[in-house]
Amino acid sequence: MDWVAVDWGTSNLRAWGIAAEGDVLWEKTSPKGMGKLSRNEYPDALLEVLVGAAHEQSRQLDVVICGMAGAKQGWLEAPYLEAPTDLRGLLDGAVRPSVPGSHVAATILPGVCQRAGDDNVMRGEETQLLGLASLHPGFAGLVCMPGTHSKWAHLAGTRIEHFSTAMTGEMFEVLRLHSVLRHSLSGELNGPGRKDGFAAGAADGLERPEHLLGMLFRIRAGSLLSDRQPDWCAGYLSGLLIGTEIASNRHLIGDTPVPLIGSPVLCDLYQKVLGMIGIKGEPQDATQTVLAGLRAARSFAA
Amino acid sequence: MDWVAVDWGTSNLRAWGIAAEGDVLWEKTSPKGMGKLSRNEYPDALLEVLVGAAHEQSRQLDVVICGMAGAKQGWLEAPYLEAPTDLRGLLDGAVRPSVPGSHVAATILPGVCQRAGDDNVMRGEETQLLGLASLHPGFAGLVCMPGTHSKWAHLAGTRIEHFSTAMTGEMFEVLRLHSVLRHSLSGELNGPGRKDGFAAGAADGLERPEHLLGMLFRIRAGSLLSDRQPDWCAGYLSGLLIGTEIASNRHLIGDTPVPLIGSPVLCDLYQKVLGMIGIKGEPQDATQTVLAGLRAARSFAA
Repeated sequence: MDWVAVDWGTSNLRAWGIAAEGDVLWEKTSPKGMGKLSRNEYPDALLEVLVGAAHEQSRQLDVVICGMAGAKQGWLEAPYLEAPTDLRGLLDGAVRPSVPGSHVAATILPGVCQRAGDDNVMRGEETQLLGLASLHPGFAGLVCMPGTHSKWAHLAGTRIEHFSTAMTGEMFEVLRLHSVLRHSLSGELNGPGRKDGFAAGAADGLERPEHLLGMLFRIRAGSLLSDRQPDWCAGYLSGLLIGTEIASNRHLIGDTPVPLIGSPVLCDLYQKVLGMIGIKGEPQDATQTVLAGLRAARSFAA
Repeated sequence: MDWVAVDWGTSNLRAWGIAAEGDVLWEKTSPKGMGKLSRNEYPDALLEVLVGAAHEQSRQLDVVICGMAGAKQGWLEAPYLEAPTDLRGLLDGAVRPSVPGSHVAATILPGVCQRAGDDNVMRGEETQLLGLASLHPGFAGLVCMPGTHSKWAHLAGTRIEHFSTAMTGEMFEVLRLHSVLRHSLSGELNGPGRKDGFAAGAADGLERPEHLLGMLFRIRAGSLLSDRQPDWCAGYLSGLLIGTEIASNRHLIGDTPVPLIGSPVLCDLYQKVLGMIGIKGEPQDATQTVLAGLRAARSFAA
């Protein structure tokens, strides 16, 4: 084993042992995400994941980390690079927290921010974007990264030109759990009506993205008046939010295919909705993408 | 005292004793809204409010009720009238639950629904709309009723032609309490920055109503990057949501003044944002409006 790649998110962390030739030797997942750790618990959380890793204990072990471990409330703050920026500079912007009593040399990559009246932040996605650039040399265009906070980024080679964030996934969850819509969304959400609801919601969102606040209440009214079941309502809400998000980015998309980086389930939904406006969505393997990004970041040392 | 007018909402109920000449003799408020009552607790909740009311106990006492007491989960369901409809028909659509051991003759007015692929519901607002029609005979145009679930209704005399609902107030609350924005909105929300934040958010919402999902996250980024304080962020969120709501109804508003029925604080905010697009908002006294509506409903017996 030559080094260890780590994606340290809010809810968990994933680590891969990488051979000198670049092969992945092992993969481990731990539930110790940023959300569950105080600052001084990070070194042990990392060492736990490394226990048993084949490695000469006398030699330094490089661990390259992306994600929330570098947030202000994480292990050690890695100040943002500011977009537009070349992602080959990630390692230059990294910070190096100490891991006492070990040979581990930990490196936390920075996130990317955007200012000038268009405030935005990402942590972790920048490494996936560098991975995409590395796996598809010469790619230039818009990339969509569906999730709790979906990112849309303009990439040109290894440069990130501009990005935005849509609170789509989180909106689904807070409305499902905490709004009046919870009455329409309690029960079996994955029944046969979900697909039809999704298609109807996506069509409405694509057609009238400025009407989100009004369309949402129609879910409640639909279950009161038209016997809409929870599965249909959940599909409608999901489709409406994704349709609204895609329509609001329609002017940036152009006609070229849009790479999608995220969970397979989400990427499939975004691909469907992009297809409704004649755009090809191209789901990427998120794990391969972040690994490629960590590899690439490591290779661009100043 | 000739009769009693009651506005029975989700969180409380308000009652007014009315003289034969129409004067309000007394007003009482009780916290026993629909949300806190099971079906069989309504009669006692009403009688508690009527205790001590000057009234010959031997004579029938008419009590006319609007609002959530007529919901499916309320006292006794008063089936919706279906828009478009003439609100002079409210009393014809009323239901009459019994109040055992008393001379009270209770009448619950129906709400209004809308179907035909444009599902929507209201309960309580229809009575305010009839009140507006009664206080402003001949009024025809759009009426805005800001609140947890804001209503926008096209009124022509006593006819309601069409309406919609925006989840604006509820969205503010669920995002403030349950989303990642809570980190930017904890602390003093009514400080001096609130006004500037409101103006900035309203301008963004008016300009780009289709971008709500993206603009929301900029609140979080703004507090991370630009030292935006909780009062500014709360103002921005409020302005963004109201601006988005108003922009999404812009095509229906025309150039005529828009009556606003709601709390004075909310009506003032909506009036400000309407003013930013050159539209005059005209706040109404919500209590006088609902009282006028209950009076008018009672007068249009078939």
